[in-house]
Amino acid sequence: MIHFMAFYFIQIFGMLAHHKLHYTITVENAKVYNDSWASIDSRPLPIWYDEAKLGIFLHWGVFSVPSFGASPAWGWYYWKVSGWQSWKDYMANNFKPKFSYADFAKDFSTEFYEPDDWADLFAASGARYMALTSKHHEGYCTYPTNVSWNWNSRDVGPHRDLVGELAHSIRSRTSMHFGLYHSLYEWFNPLYIQDKANKFQTNAFVKEKTLPELYEIVNAYKPDLIWSDGQWEAPSWYWNSTVFLSWLYNESPVKDTVVTNDRWGSDTLCKHGGYLTCNDRFNPKTHVPDKKWENAMTLNKGSWSWRRDTDISQFLTLKELLSTFIETISCGGNMLMNVGPTKEGTISPIFGERLQDFGAWMSVNGEAVYGSKPWRMVQDTMDSNVRYT
Amino acid sequence: MIHFMAFYFIQIFGMLAHHKLHYTITVENAKVYNDSWASIDSRPLPIWYDEAKLGIFLHWGVFSVPSFGASPAWGWYYWKVSGWQSWKDYMANNFKPKFSYADFAKDFSTEFYEPDDWADLFAASGARYMALTSKHHEGYCTYPTNVSWNWNSRDVGPHRDLVGELAHSIRSRTSMHFGLYHSLYEWFNPLYIQDKANKFQTNAFVKEKTLPELYEIVNAYKPDLIWSDGQWEAPSWYWNSTVFLSWLYNESPVKDTVVTNDRWGSDTLCKHGGYLTCNDRFNPKTHVPDKKWENAMTLNKGSWSWRRDTDISQFLTLKELLSTFIETISCGGNMLMNVGPTKEGTISPIFGERLQDFGAWMSVNGEAVYGSKPWRMVQDTMDSNVRYT
Amino acid sequence: MIHFMAFYFIQIFGMLAHHKLHYTITVENAKVYNDSWASIDSRPLPIWYDEAKLGIFLHWGVFSVPSFGASPAWGWYYWKVSGWQSWKDYMANNFKPKFSYADFAKDFSTEFYEPDDWADLFAASGARYMALTSKHHEGYCTYPTNVSWNWNSRDVGPHRDLVGELAHSIRSRTSMHFGLYHSLYEWFNPLYIQDKANKFQTNAFVKEKTLPELYEIVNAYKPDLIWSDGQWEAPSWYWNSTVFLSWLYNESPVKDTVVTNDRWGSDTLCKHGGYLTCNDRFNPKTHVPDKKWENAMTLNKGSWSWRRDTDISQFLTLKELLSTFIETISCGGNMLMNVGPTKEGTISPIFGERLQDFGAWMSVNGEAVYGSKPWRMVQDTMDSNVRYT
Amino acid sequence: MIHFMAFYFIQIFGMLAHHKLHYTITVENAKVYNDSWASIDSRPLPIWYDEAKLGIFLHWGVFSVPSFGASPAWGWYYWKVSGWQSWKDYMANNFKPKFSYADFAKDFSTEFYEPDDWADLFAASGARYMALTSKHHEGYCTYPTNVSWNWNSRDVGPHRDLVGELAHSIRSRTSMHFGLYHSLYEWFNPLYIQDKANKFQTNAFVKEKTLPELYEIVNAYKPDLIWSDGQWEAPSWYWNSTVFLSWLYNESPVKDTVVTNDRWGSDTLCKHGGYLTCNDRFNPKTHVPDKKWENAMTLNKGSWSWRRDTDISQFLTLKELLSTFIETISCGGNMLMNVGPTKEGTISPIFGERLQDFGAWMSVNGEAVYGSKPWRMVQDTMDSNVRYT
Repeated sequence: MIHFMAFYFIQIFGMLAHHKLHYTITVENAKVYNDSWASIDSRPLPIWYDEAKLGIFLHWGVFSVPSFGASPAWGWYYWKVSGWQSWKDYMANNFKPKFSYADFAKDFSTEFYEPDDWADLFAASGARYMALTSKHHEGYCTYPTNVSWNWNSRDVGPHRDLVGELAHSIRSRTSMHFGLYHSLYEWFNPLYIQDKANKFQTNAFVKEKTLPELYEIVNAYKPDLIWSDGQWEAPSWYWNSTVFLSWLYNESPVKDTVVTNDRWGSDTLCKHGGYLTCNDRFNPKTHVPDKKWENAMTLNKGSWSWRRDTDISQFLTLKELLSTFIETISCGGNMLMNVGPTKEGTISPIFGERLQDFGAWMSVNGEAVYGSKPWRMVQDTMDSNVRYT
Repeated sequence: MIHFMAFYFIQIFGMLAHHKLHYTITVENAKVYNDSWASIDSRPLPIWYDEAKLGIFLHWGVFSVPSFGASPAWGWYYWKVSGWQSWKDYMANNFKPKFSYADFAKDFSTEFYEPDDWADLFAASGARYMALTSKHHEGYCTYPTNVSWNWNSRDVGPHRDLVGELAHSIRSRTSMHFGLYHSLYEWFNPLYIQDKANKFQTNAFVKEKTLPELYEIVNAYKPDLIWSDGQWEAPSWYWNSTVFLSWLYNESPVKDTVVTNDRWGSDTLCKHGGYLTCNDRFNPKTHVPDKKWENAMTLNKGSWSWRRDTDISQFLTLKELLSTFIETISCGGNMLMNVGPTKEGTISPIFGERLQDFGAWMSVNGEAVYGSKPWRMVQDTMDSNVRYT
Repeated sequence: MIHFMAFYFIQIFGMLAHHKLHYTITVENAKVYNDSWASIDSRPLPIWYDEAKLGIFLHWGVFSVPSFGASPAWGWYYWKVSGWQSWKDYMANNFKPKFSYADFAKDFSTEFYEPDDWADLFAASGARYMALTSKHHEGYCTYPTNVSWNWNSRDVGPHRDLVGELAHSIRSRTSMHFGLYHSLYEWFNPLYIQDKANKFQTNAFVKEKTLPELYEIVNAYKPDLIWSDGQWEAPSWYWNSTVFLSWLYNESPVKDTVVTNDRWGSDTLCKHGGYLTCNDRFNPKTHVPDKKWENAMTLNKGSWSWRRDTDISQFLTLKELLSTFIETISCGGNMLMNVGPTKEGTISPIFGERLQDFGAWMSVNGEAVYGSKPWRMVQDTMDSNVRYT
Repeated sequence: MIHFMAFYFIQIFGMLAHHKLHYTITVENAKVYNDSWASIDSRPLPIWYDEAKLGIFLHWGVFSVPSFGASPAWGWYYWKVSGWQSWKDYMANNFKPKFSYADFAKDFSTEFYEPDDWADLFAASGARYMALTSKHHEGYCTYPTNVSWNWNSRDVGPHRDLVGELAHSIRSRTSMHFGLYHSLYEWFNPLYIQDKANKFQTNAFVKEKTLPELYEIVNAYKPDLIWSDGQWEAPSWYWNSTVFLSWLYNESPVKDTVVTNDRWGSDTLCKHGGYLTCNDRFNPKTHVPDKKWENAMTLNKGSWSWRRDTDISQFLTLKELLSTFIETISCGGNMLMNVGPTKEGTISPIFGERLQDFGAWMSVNGEAVYGSKPWRMVQDTMDSNVRYT
């Protein structure tokens, strides 16, 4: 595969060579942030993030058990709210009546989960940071929380601290930055449903569930990245986001290193917070946004979590991955490449193949990648996206 | 069996004939209770309770799944805190490693639960009230609560409202009073553990779990009896008991009819609240307490909940039951006779046999039972307990 | 209960006193039996059987898992052949589609099976023999057979030798005779279905399954009773019954003591073999048959095996049991009283209550029962059955 | 990848151009074979087989459920006979005590088995034949047999005819030849164990199990290939192999097209039967054997069946696959490339990737592959194997 990669290298190198060092970021530790978005937004992004370029995203939870159909991480919602026929049929054909989503948790077995192997594989891909779901919209915590009793990985299913074990492996074996995904909302939490029915004039859910979780994960795992999500139904004042963020930036154990994204309320996407994610698979292609951004995308085209019924046609090829990566970094973005582990705790070999091959490319071209800066001078109008051939 | 029952009848009737009508209870609806125990205790007991004499107690929950050994309702505690070898062995021999108590819930199947049949059986025993566990110390709610997500009978296990279905059957088919047992404390709820570690100077557990549940069950099921329990580790000010009780007596939908017991804090047993329970199987035998009391006892000698490994030797005989009943009511008590349903939702035929036989006796002797009053004049010192032969 | 039992005792004793000793049985050990029914039938019945009067019948197998509805031991047949709606509904409501009968076997757990306790309970009832299902019509063997791989209690479910363990307990703790039930046919065994389709002109099923099993259980467990069943669809020459019986009587390890019944082919019921069973719950009531007979009946009126959904109304009362027993023995029969253990290996307390009460009566009246002979002289025409009040 | 493939193409084409058409095979249909090996061996190999060059091998069965460790298809043996610690640990850590191998069957779910998709994928690889396990050494049949009741895919697990469904898809969608793998011996079948204990002087197992199965699969599925295995412990006279083969060649519905291998008894490997397999992954490399042969190898280096705990390092690269293929066909062999489906009925995307890439190469180079003949004139001594670079 070497020979056609060479073209990439040359082009990228040339391109990137013009982009270097247009701005400098210094974290002013002394600054104190208040709970206004103006203040929060004024915090400079810790420099490690921009330099890292490539991250690994991991969607892992109870949804990894049904692990079926388009985007299983949304399966509960598709089944119960959207009423998708494919989900109704799957449940009717394979489970007894009254089988509930919560019943899946007992089969979240993770018996082959070897976080050291995961850490080694991610590092081999060339990624410099990663983010694991500490809780997705299903509300199930993958760590031993105090505020989600019998709906977390200590009480039902793995009976392990999935987050803690990976944090340890990542830190002891690699130089990657450890991050956590966290969903603000939960489709079916009765407290959230209540608050929503009250048009968010009550906030029992935020006080009793969301905020305690955020404090828990920061204090327990000291993540360098909080990838917030599930913000869209309620404004940031309901989520108390700026209060949390001011604590995070002023007082938390990761105040100097932590990076966050822009998903902190229906009023924040593509606007407030840390770096921009705007939308899933965000990729401006022809211009360099004014603020640092990230392209969160999936190796398996259609799904954030593992699909047991997937086949090879659904996986991006190495060439497609590299194209996207080059497009992303040349316009100033990072790429957060998503992998979906299985309920057994394994990473399907096809992901291993892609990550290894990506890493092989990175080992040749990494010098032109890490720490590079986009070329902001010229609007690239000759083509619809960054070209690599 | 009729003919030898006649002897009981004559003796009891003679005995009870001397005990009639020494006081009258009138509920003064206009009175407003404040949150002092003095005020709470001043409320007269609704008259139905004293007249009812016999109640059925039901212990049913996730503990009905392992349903093993001495008092399975305490099994989780024996296993994890007491470290009983019998529980360790049972778990080691029959389950995979890491099987947790929460994993039992999926087998709480209740597929044969026919609340109408239960109601008919209880009524046939002569009982005039009953109490079902809405939540025991395990924390699992047998109704669709908003504050115990994925740890209640709607979300895992039955996928039914066990409380609501029985309430409906009891009310539509019998004249029994419907009551609910509720445990204040929960051995393993992380919020409770936290408050306890804080020496009860915090009360997140009470605010987020216990109190919301009590309001839920009163508003949803309008019970005439709240059989509180699990009060002993913390004082009533931690549990906020008088605040709840003043609401219950002043404003709740059952303010005129509801009866409660004396288990509302480490400072209340045998002292404050509604009627006295003092301790399990309380039976003063030779004197009439000054306040209305209840003998909460079990048909299966050693266990509140169903034991799958039980045999006939563990069941009280009809004769033993009647002795206890007569002792109880002649000293002014009610008897709350406990039955343990199975995880399938059935009541083992041996319970049916006892309840039917008890009811046959009641159909002959009920006139001398219901509404009777104890004879307070004379201390019965000739014998160690009330005699019936 | 003692005092009103006395009435029974006096009446029975008077009645039975007239029936004594009209014939004598001697087993002529030297005789050799050939495979003609005339020869087989000429064998005298070992004397222990007539003297024993009371036996315990045990129906236990995979059917003890669904354990639902009318006669669960026939459930597979009702479900798949008869197409009963109650079974279709039960399966549809409680299991996933495609759940098969064989899938029940994994839940035949027997974790509380204590054969010593069973032996003690049976002996306490006054029974002098018992018979356990070694294989019912479902084909599942409750012992580690060589000819029913992965469909026996060693390979799936208990992973124990249910037959062997009980044989040991019965023999080491009681003086009861140990017997085994065995079904010749199996509804769904493909080999049987094939032979049947061939109008029984082939007999692969008999050669490869039925006969090997019969030799296995005789050689391994040395039963004093073989309670054959499932004979009705094919003649005794298909089953090779007389060949087996001549071996059993001439050469087997139990040739001097073994007793069999009359279910050895569509041509044998109520006619050939050992004692007569004629039909289930056979009870001639007003005459004494010419040959020794047995009333095989069930304590639970409608079912041979345990029904999880049963209630007290379905159990014979002690009075009903004693009536039937007295009717049976006064006309020369034995009563084989059926008990259905649970999948957990327990015997429901209601059975314990009946067996204990029966034993209490036997301990008073046994002298007039064991070894008694019916009074053959007079046709008892004054009443429709033997009277006991 | 195109460019370096071109080198293969040229080299192979050149090499193969010299090898053409050295012998002609004609099946003389009129010939009758007797049950001597001389006669059986005299049958010419149907010509389709040599021309096909590439086949897909499928190992799928109950072993696809544990699907763990080195060669899960042998897991039962490693666990129970070899006593491998890894298996003991896996079972002890993840299952309850007494969990048996048979208990795995219920989880052989195959809910995502789409045989049409399989057929399309196999055809896309360039393979011209395939063989699926109809029964491996575990004894479980993947079709509805009459001689393995409750241990086949109709009765427990899939509740489907896995063989029949794939046969239909292969034939209706592709021009591939459909074949079946069949194991003569079964580690734990009590009948086999008995015969073996009798030093193979009895053959109940062969009469009642092995032979009936072979006749069943030939008559029901008309396979063009029977890939026999598990022959090594007993001579071919025990297996009755020549009797079966003479029927297969003279009378069976596939007598003109069927191909078999050389695994028909401890005396036959690499010697008698159809083509030679000699040993797993047989690859003579430097000479052309006198008889047609096959290299049965695995895409996953260490395992015939799917391993849930596998990672990318265990899969042969495309380059390794092509090397082996070219070595194989240039010395006159066929390559049977093994794929291990999952218990869910899927084929892991990594297999899809390899088969697609192999097919891409075949679509360019197939002309030089299919129907080619090895060059027998010259001993290729210059190198240790066929070179391709």
